[in-house]
Amino acid sequence: MKLLNLFGLTAEQISKLNKLGNVQVLDSTDLNSENISDIDVIYGWGKPAMEVLSKSPKLKLVQSNSAGVDYMPLSQLAKKKVTLTNVSGIHAEPISEMVLAYVLSFARGVVTSQAARRDKQWVGDKIRMNNYTLPNRTAVIFGTGHIGKAIAEKLQAFGTKTIGVSRHGKPVDHFDEVVTDTEGTKRAAKADFVINIMPLTSETKHFFNQTFFDQMVNQPVFINVGRGPSVDTQALINALNTSKLAGAGLDVFESEPLEADSPLWGMDNVILTPHISGGFKEYGEESFDILYKNLASLIQTGDAAINKVDLSAGY
Amino acid sequence: MKLLNLFGLTAEQISKLNKLGNVQVLDSTDLNSENISDIDVIYGWGKPAMEVLSKSPKLKLVQSNSAGVDYMPLSQLAKKKVTLTNVSGIHAEPISEMVLAYVLSFARGVVTSQAARRDKQWVGDKIRMNNYTLPNRTAVIFGTGHIGKAIAEKLQAFGTKTIGVSRHGKPVDHFDEVVTDTEGTKRAAKADFVINIMPLTSETKHFFNQTFFDQMVNQPVFINVGRGPSVDTQALINALNTSKLAGAGLDVFESEPLEADSPLWGMDNVILTPHISGGFKEYGEESFDILYKNLASLIQTGDAAINKVDLSAGY
Repeated sequence: MKLLNLFGLTAEQISKLNKLGNVQVLDSTDLNSENISDIDVIYGWGKPAMEVLSKSPKLKLVQSNSAGVDYMPLSQLAKKKVTLTNVSGIHAEPISEMVLAYVLSFARGVVTSQAARRDKQWVGDKIRMNNYTLPNRTAVIFGTGHIGKAIAEKLQAFGTKTIGVSRHGKPVDHFDEVVTDTEGTKRAAKADFVINIMPLTSETKHFFNQTFFDQMVNQPVFINVGRGPSVDTQALINALNTSKLAGAGLDVFESEPLEADSPLWGMDNVILTPHISGGFKEYGEESFDILYKNLASLIQTGDAAINKVDLSAGY
Repeated sequence: MKLLNLFGLTAEQISKLNKLGNVQVLDSTDLNSENISDIDVIYGWGKPAMEVLSKSPKLKLVQSNSAGVDYMPLSQLAKKKVTLTNVSGIHAEPISEMVLAYVLSFARGVVTSQAARRDKQWVGDKIRMNNYTLPNRTAVIFGTGHIGKAIAEKLQAFGTKTIGVSRHGKPVDHFDEVVTDTEGTKRAAKADFVINIMPLTSETKHFFNQTFFDQMVNQPVFINVGRGPSVDTQALINALNTSKLAGAGLDVFESEPLEADSPLWGMDNVILTPHISGGFKEYGEESFDILYKNLASLIQTGDAAINKVDLSAGY
């Protein structure tokens, strides 16, 4: 069995895979016109992956190293009957912590302090009385999967009311309520925090647009740790400039890297991080654990064990 | 009974006090050479307070509007048998939230992202793999009172190990362990976060000095939400410049406002807020609730009910 490694494996991890049976690990530099048609599994994604997809009739499994898979040729994978698995689950802790970093930085005046700091302004009196605490605030979280649930759990620990928005509207742990899309926007309008962690699909593209932001009445803080294209960037900038939103914590953007001329770089009511919310030191190890489980299962049963993506739904 | 209001009372609050009995509220502008010797209670502290202390033989109670009372003439209050009460307790939620804002901003790379943002650098790959999450990290918290406990409770909710440092070393809720000063420094040396919330006394002045920082081996993030003079500022700056510390979250400073020429303003591994961590919108209401309880008790029993300061200990 040949595995094309496009993400990163340590020597120790490769030796662990070898022990699973006849597993041979190739890097992209090892690929040639002969072995490319022999690849069974791809770990990660990147340049040679499309070529392998078209040239290897043996390809059975793509194990992505991300949770979102919107950047992959899902219909082609479906057509070729390739199983796609993701690493959904390992991002719950790091991303939910990032959301709390944003939420607390806005609530406690760290954001306004940092803006004043540039000019060495000591503006404690002004900031102090505008600060607030989290008990009895309301957060509306679009997306109630692993990560949404982890965000809700942490916010609940601070005494914040959590409203989830999903397609099904069914109860989910750690949400005080779960509602569907239309009702979700109404709730967001009156919330203190509006948080996006939905996958990117044709339905969620530009979900957060001018029409959405125009309905906000309580000047919420908007947080995007889902996918950039779920937001119409110009509409977001307008909403920030017209005080429809109090601020934004943004980890993902419609185009990445963020363009040098984007006004977002310079906006004082925005926390901007370069698509890092899911990352952490032990990411490679936790991602490998999922690859290992799925490869072992593939060898034994002919199918992956966990984290299979529904190729028509896109997540 | 005459109350000198040096903090701030709304009309509604004054009318509530009036109803307690024969309570008359004076502002500093109402003071004159006659009524100054008639003041029974001071709410808050400020310019005319010292004069009232020396001129009013009737002064029985000073209700401060802060938790720390190191700026007050404690021995003079003791000599004149004036009871001092503080508003200890109401800062636990806002300050513990601020500590989590600092902790998460360092752990999740918000601090490094904001530094890179100035130059519009999109450095996700570099930042992502240096980030970490809070489970199994260790925080050493100097001070195990109301606020220290609230900090520990929140960190525990994130899976962080909490070690408290106090004079008594006895177990306290939400701390995995409580140790005394000397052992505390040893634990701090190996911790991820070192947090100060001790009151300022002769024992805690410059507690965090060059000798302390030189012992740090795990490059912790240092957080000060206690009192500025507990830290030797030059030693802190040295520790930040020589990587003895990974960074610092500072809300209080040896001299406030922070001097314009302080290197701290420009240091990228420092979050700097202008003494705001205890503030929040409802502060005036919660502070008033304590004044009200103590004034009602003073009228009925001749003594304050809650939050009495031990004038010899200083807190």
